[in-house]
Formats: sequence, C-alpha cells, structure tokens
Amino acid sequence: MQKLEQDFETNGDFIADLTARICASYADNIAVNHNERQNLPREAEILDNLNRILELIFPGFGTHAVHSTSTLPYAVGELLATTYISMRDLICRANRYVCRAAGKEICDCSGTAESAARNLLESIPELRESMKLDIQAAYDGDPAARTLDEIVLSYPGVRAISIQRIAHNLYCSKVPMIPRMMTEYAHRITGIDIHPGACLGKGLFIDHGTGVVIGETAEIGNDVKIYQGVTLGALSFPKDACGMIIKGAKRHPTIEDNVTIYAGASILGAVTIGKGSIIGGNVWLTENTAPGTKITIAAPELTIRKSSKQN
Amino acid sequence: MQKLEQDFETNGDFIADLTARICASYADNIAVNHNERQNLPREAEILDNLNRILELIFPGFGTHAVHSTSTLPYAVGELLATTYISMRDLICRANRYVCRAAGKEICDCSGTAESAARNLLESIPELRESMKLDIQAAYDGDPAARTLDEIVLSYPGVRAISIQRIAHNLYCSKVPMIPRMMTEYAHRITGIDIHPGACLGKGLFIDHGTGVVIGETAEIGNDVKIYQGVTLGALSFPKDACGMIIKGAKRHPTIEDNVTIYAGASILGAVTIGKGSIIGGNVWLTENTAPGTKITIAAPELTIRKSSKQN
Amino acid sequence: MQKLEQDFETNGDFIADLTARICASYADNIAVNHNERQNLPREAEILDNLNRILELIFPGFGTHAVHSTSTLPYAVGELLATTYISMRDLICRANRYVCRAAGKEICDCSGTAESAARNLLESIPELRESMKLDIQAAYDGDPAARTLDEIVLSYPGVRAISIQRIAHNLYCSKVPMIPRMMTEYAHRITGIDIHPGACLGKGLFIDHGTGVVIGETAEIGNDVKIYQGVTLGALSFPKDACGMIIKGAKRHPTIEDNVTIYAGASILGAVTIGKGSIIGGNVWLTENTAPGTKITIAAPELTIRKSSKQN
Repeated sequence: MQKLEQDFETNGDFIADLTARICASYADNIAVNHNERQNLPREAEILDNLNRILELIFPGFGTHAVHSTSTLPYAVGELLATTYISMRDLICRANRYVCRAAGKEICDCSGTAESAARNLLESIPELRESMKLDIQAAYDGDPAARTLDEIVLSYPGVRAISIQRIAHNLYCSKVPMIPRMMTEYAHRITGIDIHPGACLGKGLFIDHGTGVVIGETAEIGNDVKIYQGVTLGALSFPKDACGMIIKGAKRHPTIEDNVTIYAGASILGAVTIGKGSIIGGNVWLTENTAPGTKITIAAPELTIRKSSKQN
Repeated sequence: MQKLEQDFETNGDFIADLTARICASYADNIAVNHNERQNLPREAEILDNLNRILELIFPGFGTHAVHSTSTLPYAVGELLATTYISMRDLICRANRYVCRAAGKEICDCSGTAESAARNLLESIPELRESMKLDIQAAYDGDPAARTLDEIVLSYPGVRAISIQRIAHNLYCSKVPMIPRMMTEYAHRITGIDIHPGACLGKGLFIDHGTGVVIGETAEIGNDVKIYQGVTLGALSFPKDACGMIIKGAKRHPTIEDNVTIYAGASILGAVTIGKGSIIGGNVWLTENTAPGTKITIAAPELTIRKSSKQN
Repeated sequence: MQKLEQDFETNGDFIADLTARICASYADNIAVNHNERQNLPREAEILDNLNRILELIFPGFGTHAVHSTSTLPYAVGELLATTYISMRDLICRANRYVCRAAGKEICDCSGTAESAARNLLESIPELRESMKLDIQAAYDGDPAARTLDEIVLSYPGVRAISIQRIAHNLYCSKVPMIPRMMTEYAHRITGIDIHPGACLGKGLFIDHGTGVVIGETAEIGNDVKIYQGVTLGALSFPKDACGMIIKGAKRHPTIEDNVTIYAGASILGAVTIGKGSIIGGNVWLTENTAPGTKITIAAPELTIRKSSKQN
C-alpha cells in the first residue's frame, strides 16, 4: 500500500498531465462515444442477441442449457421476449446514432427499430429451414462429415452462413452498423468474410472457408459450393463526377445455381457465372460465363530438379 | 417497469404466436438437442478440458495459476482427476448420441469412454515430448523467434499442432464429434485447419499458418516445414456404386521427412512427396514426387508499365 | 457421491502414477513456468491492458462503459493509472524472465519497464492521430463503408493495425515477448499477421485482410492499400558462419508511399517498391520496382469447356 502511494506521488503529475492531453485530443469528436451526443450499440450486447437467435434456431446447440421437450416452449418464449426487447433497443440506438451524425433530428428511429426487430424474429422459422438445407449440403459435400449434428456443432462455413443470413435480414431492413458488426464477428471466428448485403441462395456449402471474401452486392443461387480462399470481389469502384467512390453500386459477381468454385479462385466485377459451371482452383475471372462451363487454368509450368537438401 | 408491462401487452400476442410456430418447426428433430432424446457434449466443457490438458503439458503457460515447484504435483493430480472425470463423461455422451442416432441401443458407450479418456491422459508425457520438438522446430526455422517460451506463448502454428495432437489421440480411439470440435476451435483461433484424422510426424513447423488446410487422411513425416496458405487436400472424392461419397477413404497426400512446402502451395490427392523435397510457393501439384526434388512454378510473366497514379 | 468415491478408489492408482510421470517430465524446465524460477506475463493481463489502451484511444467503443463528457477525465485518469501500474509490472516480469534465461542476474529490469510503460502511455495522443488517419483511409477506400464509426466498431484491418501500432511502440523499447503476444492476438481475431517490428506509415488501409503476413523488418510508407492474402515476406534467411539463422537481419520489403497491393500478391526479400506503384493480384515479386510502376501477371490461360454437370 505504501508502495502504491509512493507510486502515485512520483507519477501523479505524469498521469494528470497525460489525462489532460488525452482529453484535449477528443475535442474532434471522432470515434468518441459519450452519453450526451450519442450511444452506440455495443458489441457484447449484439453478440448476446446473435447467440440467442442461433439458440432459437438450433435449440441446445449453443451456450444455453439443454432443454426438456415439455419445457422447451417456455425457454423459447423467454428467449424471444428478451431478444425482442434488446434488439429493438440496439437497433433504435444505431438508428439514432446515424440520424444525428447525418444531422437529421426528426425520424421514426424507434418505430423502424420495432418493425426491424419484429421482422427478424418473425423470420426465424424460415431461417431454420434455410440453415437445415445448408447443413445437408455440407453433409453431402464433405467426405469427412459423419453426422448432421457434428456439422452444426463445428463447421465454420455453416456458422458464417447462419450469421450472415441473420445479418442480411437486418441489412434488408436498412439497420445501420449492426449487420456488419455481426458478419465481422463471423469473419473473426471463421476467417470467412461475407458482407451482410450479399444475397445467398439455398443449400450453400463453404468448405474450410479461411480467406473467403464475398462482397456486398454479390448474388449466389441455390446449391453452390465454395472452397477456401475464394474471392467474389470488385474489379473497380464506380465513381461519381467528383471522383468519389459511389457507395453501394453493384460491383460483385452473380453466381447462378449449382456452381462449384474451387480453392483460391477469384471472380471479380459484376459478372454472371452461368448455372452448373465449375470454376477451378486459382482461376482469375473477370468475364461472364455461359451455363455449364468448366474453367481451369493451364497448370503453371513446373521446374523440377534435384534438391540440394536431401537426407 | 410500467413500460415493460405495456410492451408485453402490446407484444404478448406476437411472442406467443411466434413461440408456437418456432416450437412446431422443431418437430423434425434436426439440430434439436434435448434431455429426453440426447445430450450433446457442449463446446464450453470440451474447451475447459482442452485447456486443462494444455496446462498439464506446459504448466503455468495457460490461463491457470502460476505454480510453485513444491506444490506442482498437487496441481497436476487435481487437474488430472478433474479432466479424467469430465472427459469420460463427455466422451460417453458423444458415444451415446451417435449410437442412438444410428439406432443402436446396446453398446458399451461408457466402457469405451473410460478407456478413451484414460488413453488420452496416459499419453500426456509423450505429447509433451512431441510438442517440445515442434517448439524447437519453430525456433530453428524462424529468424524472428527469440526464445522458446515466446513460441509457446504466442505462435499459432504451435497451438494448432498441439490441439490437433490431442484431438488425434481421441480420433484414434474412435471418439465421435469431440476431436473435430477441438480442431475447429484451433482453426477458429489460428486460421489453421488440420483435420483430427491427419497423422503428423515429429518436429512439424507451420509458420504464420493462416489458410493452411490439412485433410483427414494426410500423413506428414518428421521435420516438415509448412507456410501460410498451404493446402494438403483432396482432388476428387471416391464414390460408391450409388454415386454417394465414401466417407473416410484415403484421398490426401503423404509428405515424407524433411520436406518444406512454401506459402500458397496446393498438393492434392493421395500422392507422395518424397523425402527432402522442396515445394515452392503457389505450386499446384497432383502427382508423386521423387525424394530430393525441388519444384517451383515458372514465375508468371509480369506486365510492367508506368502507372497512371504517381505522386 | 458414492459413485465419485468409487471412481477414485478404482482410478486413484492410475492418477497417482500418471501424476508422478508427468511431474518427472517437467525436469527439463522447458515450457514450465513456476514461481521460484520465473513468472511469465500472462495473456489475460496483457489483453486487459491492450483493451484499456484501445479504450483510451477510442473512448466508449470498446467493452467499457459509455462516458459522459463531464466525467470523461476521471475515467481517463483511472484507466491511465491502472494501465500504467499493470503494464510496468508485466514488462518488468518479461524483462526478468528473459534476463534470467540468458543468465544475466543483474540488470535494470524494473527501471527499463518503467520507462517503456511511460513511453507507451505518453504516445497515446499520437497513436490516436495515426489511427484517425487509418480510419479515414478505410472510409475513402471502401465503397461498402458508410460511416467512420462503423469502421472503428467492425473493421478487422483497423483493429489489427491499431494493435500493431501499440505493440510496435513496446518493440521499439525492446520489451520482450509482450509485443508479439499482442500482435498474435490481433492475428487470432483478424487473420492479419503483422510482426510488431514492422514500421507502418500513416493512413494504411488493409481491406478484408485474412491471410495478410507482414514480416518483422518490413517498412511501409504513407497512404498504402493492402488487400487480403498479401505477403510481405522473406525470400531467404541470412545465416552466420555456423549456418545458424541470424535473428533480426533486414529481410522483408520496403513499400514506399501511395502503393496499392492487390489480393494474394507476394513481395519477398529486402526489395523496395517505389512510390505510387500498383502491384496486381497474385503477383510474385522478388525485385526492386521503380516509382510509378504498374505490375500485373499475364492472366493464366484458361481452359474453357462445356461441363459434364449441368442442370
């Protein structure tokens, strides 16, 4: 204790001076969140809700308690009520934050939050149907998969797609910030970066997944398979008359039904890959592709010689 | 409080109706875990055990308390007893889950769980020997490594390999689900995706590691070095007479001793890369390689011109 | 309870015997952290400090409470005092650990820890200025970015760069272990692996980021853009007369101002990429480049045929 007091005597000036300098640096209000001006949605709250929604979709698989059949409805009702109130509040705060930043003081932030939260929860049965198809696609496509449950418990592709489907619902309701925070959480835990704006079809399978990037305006049909390191990206960014990038313009590929894209392939720009096409590993593609096309790169020539290292 | 009550009056019907619809959607029993039917091992419990085993292998390096030399045996005994009881229970639940799903009602789920848990813990001294060689390999192979301890504390390659060696032990005891949940946890925190089925030799070094994929039936010899983005994958999947993928068949490479595989290389199919070979960055290889071979790709031709952008 | 006792009767011998064998295996003292000999900095403590520093830089964005303007100075002062004391202690322990391992018993571990901790905190206003430029660069470079705050909340590139800038400050003060533990944490949550030794210029934007590797002796100028999967790596490792790798020698690229490096490009060795150059996707480069150069790879020849699969 005496040591600590001594510390503060010695260092008190340094701390006081530095506190003043740091506080002065906040005057620009950039990346400063405080009560009087704004009140950002917080990541921990968003992830709590996300996990509750996943628990509603796959009951007993997440962090929550195992249920008994007879009490399951109570658990579901409780999860729904909690999630609804919390999501509505978070969306409202995100709306307000963006409205104020844009200088709009009057807008129905709370009404739009209510309908966005409701719309998300109402879609849970439909999300569950979608995710069951994704799980089946993983089972059918991966020789290492032994049971459907193992896939729900452990496959990063299924997790990333599930979270994106939830975030996409909010994105469609024009909720700011929260959808991207959800998909960046998925990116963090899976290495799979799918923008909440991307439209994903049914029965999507992403295997391994690390390094996959799917851009905001990408559209993917049904029964598509994607392997690690695939980019569905932009080739260039449309700009306005002042040379500023136009936010939100279509700039990513459209992938039709039954397409397979192997590891490391990059498909760039607002092109269409026709139904049933197969895009080989490491292919670099910036043009439309007719349905039923198989594209591979000419294997790069290998230089093979006896190594100096040998034992 | 009054606000909340009002909320429930307004929204009660919506919640009640949605609860019923969501519960109805569980009727298919897909990805629904409940007491009466099954009781999945839970990720949090598995990770607790995994961290205890890592603490037993590298005492004082993990999340647990720093030990004193004289009390270390008590800490070790306590960790062992706790881990044994918990792992046995988790493995038993995983066994039961899979047996029931397969319609087998009579099997020695609990006896096989006991021997699998025991076998894992008995192998800790041997796992520690293996991991010491992995750490030394990282030190020898990385000019940025300053001490062995820094490697244990921070290198993702060492972490991924350690977890895979633990998971592989359980995989060899035919424990369902848990091994894959362990390696997917490693994948999540390191970006390195090694299937629990892969056989890893001694002194393996994976540098940087993000994007590495090593498949279920891959075999890796001693003193092998692998860089980021390397895939040891399957080229095609053997199918049965009905066109269904055969689960578990050999389909991934065998890498012999002293091979180095540089960043971004893909080696696909059940091929053998001979002793002491060096596989260059971005090489795409689907054939056997004789011992002591050095393979590089012909550098892709570069187009070099003055950029429009310059300042 | 009776079950448990029975368990211990049956398994007591097994646990006792295994405890003895495991403890015996610690005799080599490799990767064993105990009170009498050493006392490693612990990851949880390091991450607490890292998050406090990030909270000081972007107040209200992290895990801590939202502040009001009038009380913000108290919060800042409290965070600073706590962080200072804790960082000083952690750095001192890291210093001591390394000194003892090197057999040096007399060194000013505590004095150098004090100045390193102080130097880090003193640089917070400057770090905040740097990070504001990184955020602006992300906004200008990404058509999907809608607000600056969204970038602070969710962009992995900004997070990885922020943590590296903090770690780099400690690296420059020659603090052992802790800087690398910080950047490996960033690597874990973003897939972006920047060594704490790398020198980053102002206004750096890393988009998507998964798989990016930036080595210890890399130097990056101002206003540089880097996409996912880019490696700024070593081509070979300088060795001493005994054939041992020389630790710390310059072996990574220097990237001058206004360079853009697209996804998957690898630049290897101690080469210089001149001002304003553009390096295309998947380029493999091991030579110096004059300012204002645009380098792309000749698109690999595609083999295009009708796929057998079509529906």
